[in-house]
Amino acid sequence: MADIAGLMARREALLGPNVAAFYNEPLHIVKGDGVWLWDADGRRYLDCYNNVPHVGHCHPKVVEAIAVQAATLNTHTRYLHEGILDYVEKLVARFDASLSAAIMVCTGSEANDIALRMAQAATGHTGIIATDMTYHGNTALVSQLSTRKPPIGGFAANLRHAPAPDALRRPSGDSFAEGVTASIASLAAEGFGTACLIVDPFFANEGFPTLQPGFLDQAVAAVREAGGIIIADEVQPGFGRIGTHWWGHEKVGITPEIVTLGKPMGNGHPVAAVVAGHETLSAFRNAFGYFNTFGGNPVSCAAAMAVLEVIETEGLVENAREVGAYARERMRALAGKYPFIADVRGSGLFFGAEMVLDDTNTPAGNFTARVVEGMKARGILLNRLGKDYATLKIRPPMVFSRENADLLVDTLDAVLAETPLVP
Amino acid sequence: MADIAGLMARREALLGPNVAAFYNEPLHIVKGDGVWLWDADGRRYLDCYNNVPHVGHCHPKVVEAIAVQAATLNTHTRYLHEGILDYVEKLVARFDASLSAAIMVCTGSEANDIALRMAQAATGHTGIIATDMTYHGNTALVSQLSTRKPPIGGFAANLRHAPAPDALRRPSGDSFAEGVTASIASLAAEGFGTACLIVDPFFANEGFPTLQPGFLDQAVAAVREAGGIIIADEVQPGFGRIGTHWWGHEKVGITPEIVTLGKPMGNGHPVAAVVAGHETLSAFRNAFGYFNTFGGNPVSCAAAMAVLEVIETEGLVENAREVGAYARERMRALAGKYPFIADVRGSGLFFGAEMVLDDTNTPAGNFTARVVEGMKARGILLNRLGKDYATLKIRPPMVFSRENADLLVDTLDAVLAETPLVP
Repeated sequence: MADIAGLMARREALLGPNVAAFYNEPLHIVKGDGVWLWDADGRRYLDCYNNVPHVGHCHPKVVEAIAVQAATLNTHTRYLHEGILDYVEKLVARFDASLSAAIMVCTGSEANDIALRMAQAATGHTGIIATDMTYHGNTALVSQLSTRKPPIGGFAANLRHAPAPDALRRPSGDSFAEGVTASIASLAAEGFGTACLIVDPFFANEGFPTLQPGFLDQAVAAVREAGGIIIADEVQPGFGRIGTHWWGHEKVGITPEIVTLGKPMGNGHPVAAVVAGHETLSAFRNAFGYFNTFGGNPVSCAAAMAVLEVIETEGLVENAREVGAYARERMRALAGKYPFIADVRGSGLFFGAEMVLDDTNTPAGNFTARVVEGMKARGILLNRLGKDYATLKIRPPMVFSRENADLLVDTLDAVLAETPLVP
Repeated sequence: MADIAGLMARREALLGPNVAAFYNEPLHIVKGDGVWLWDADGRRYLDCYNNVPHVGHCHPKVVEAIAVQAATLNTHTRYLHEGILDYVEKLVARFDASLSAAIMVCTGSEANDIALRMAQAATGHTGIIATDMTYHGNTALVSQLSTRKPPIGGFAANLRHAPAPDALRRPSGDSFAEGVTASIASLAAEGFGTACLIVDPFFANEGFPTLQPGFLDQAVAAVREAGGIIIADEVQPGFGRIGTHWWGHEKVGITPEIVTLGKPMGNGHPVAAVVAGHETLSAFRNAFGYFNTFGGNPVSCAAAMAVLEVIETEGLVENAREVGAYARERMRALAGKYPFIADVRGSGLFFGAEMVLDDTNTPAGNFTARVVEGMKARGILLNRLGKDYATLKIRPPMVFSRENADLLVDTLDAVLAETPLVP
């Protein structure tokens, strides 16, 4: 048997306290393949959670690309190399023509840390607006965008947090735009001006509310009127995850000035990017002498290129659309059976169900936690998110099949039937 | 022939302007092996510059470790995995017993971004002191430590830059301590207090002056008396690079509260770390809910573990000490021949020579630039650094041999003989 307690003790000693692990009894995972993970006892789990292994755990094409390039050359961008040029060329071809250049880095946090400064350099303003339920990364600057834990020394004076949309309780674009407009006015009053609104256009951490067409239009117009620009953080919805489009901002019908990319980009290899128009990107390049040692190195670009190619050759965006729609259709049938499922929503292979305790929509956070544990006990990995953590978060590798979706929904049916609906 | 102009044009279009490339005509490098690099025309170069491929370009043990682990599993630290525990255990065994735990991240910039906040969390103060000639990374916070380009919006109020030591002109520890003490007083007067002095204990970017024993003692004592702590940035001197010790802070005889690691740690794979005492690290872990998606993932840890093992099994610290000493001895002979070599210095496989125009030690920056180009023309890669960029920067992979050193010095002799000593 795996010695979970022993591993947890070593972890506390070597990595410090407060290092989050999933589940009441954490998993000791040792192997991955496609949509499957195995623990140290040989038990197999269907992975309905992990978006980083975008094209599937240990995809052979990505592994091969990494192995071959690591054995050939791995330097930095102060020498010329075709890897980064070929990759960025292929990447920006997936965007609106106005988004034509990129800076390659190692993590989504680094990408957003650049994007915020890029917005400041491009606009001459310093004010930053995010939602009050978001997460964009972990650097000193970017972690300020999250409201869950106030930073040491307090929030910076040039930040504003606009109330996030709420799928059940505050779904309209008008109320979101009101919050953004109030932030703009406040930043103007204090002399910062508005540099940017940074937003995940799928609002993943906010509980991925179903957005009406044009949801963001009014907020975007207000930001631009104030001389600011839009940063779309595509770390979660990007690379076809949402099935209907390659990028979240396309689904919501806007073209941002800056896009940031991360997690799924290299299928687990640390690679991320900031995509922008040449002029916007130049404003940053000219204001800073930015260099990232590992950013855009030949191995990172080989990994990222393999991911793009696999998405295309295996038709994974279409797969996300079809399998995601099928899974939600089956989950909606469950919602007919279990009235505590208040909403089934999502897009492509990023979806979930919001659970409530009663017909006033009181969030069922603890119940949802027990469902997550029950699913794990039956060999299915997923999680929960949203303001009250009452929404199931289902976000499997993009090679997820109808058969996998059936196993997910059938197991969910069994777990919901056996889990008592108590607070 | 390689189409350098064509690659440069694609680079400008796809990556933006102001993306630094080495040399008047940049190199198009396509292959690496040990201490050698090859360009697209098949020309071979002796790499006397790159510290990232610490155990040699494309070391087969590191490549194999990456390939095997990438094919097995690559997830994150929210599941348990022995890779990160085994690695951190082996890593911290290389430090003083007081440095017993680590946070693993992807880049030295991320490591320093954490270290600064860790110092603030551990001390309750916010003031930060660095030298005025340093570089610690590229996040919004960490880039403020560099003075070369003032940040948008100016430097933060809680930063102080103490005058860096200068090998030829200001070599004493007293004058460095004076600058640090003045910074402490200024931070106290403005109510920030002193959280930390962050310093590369080898002062690489400052031109790696030859330090007297106890050089840092007075400054360190002043910081600690003010309730602050010491961050040793070991990204450049660490992992045995300096030959005499595994870490720069050991050579200068101090034990810092926090150590940061980066570039050489994974031989080019994006992996970095913050090492600290359990209590210091806990202060950060408890103040922030820090999580790094790629940080400490199984592939990163496999790469980093392979690097540690190769350093040990191939005796690379001893090799750095011996070959470095031999190379400097031969370069000192050159200094007898060429009086414009004012100083040959360094430690292990991080060394160089400072060039001057006259006997008042006027820095010969442009001359040194021509020497760097002349060396490249003869197939040797190195660079320059220091305040006036008049010091040759020689920092090859750790598998550099006596034979490699002979080729380096013989070629340098030829280039110095043919390069006119003009401003």
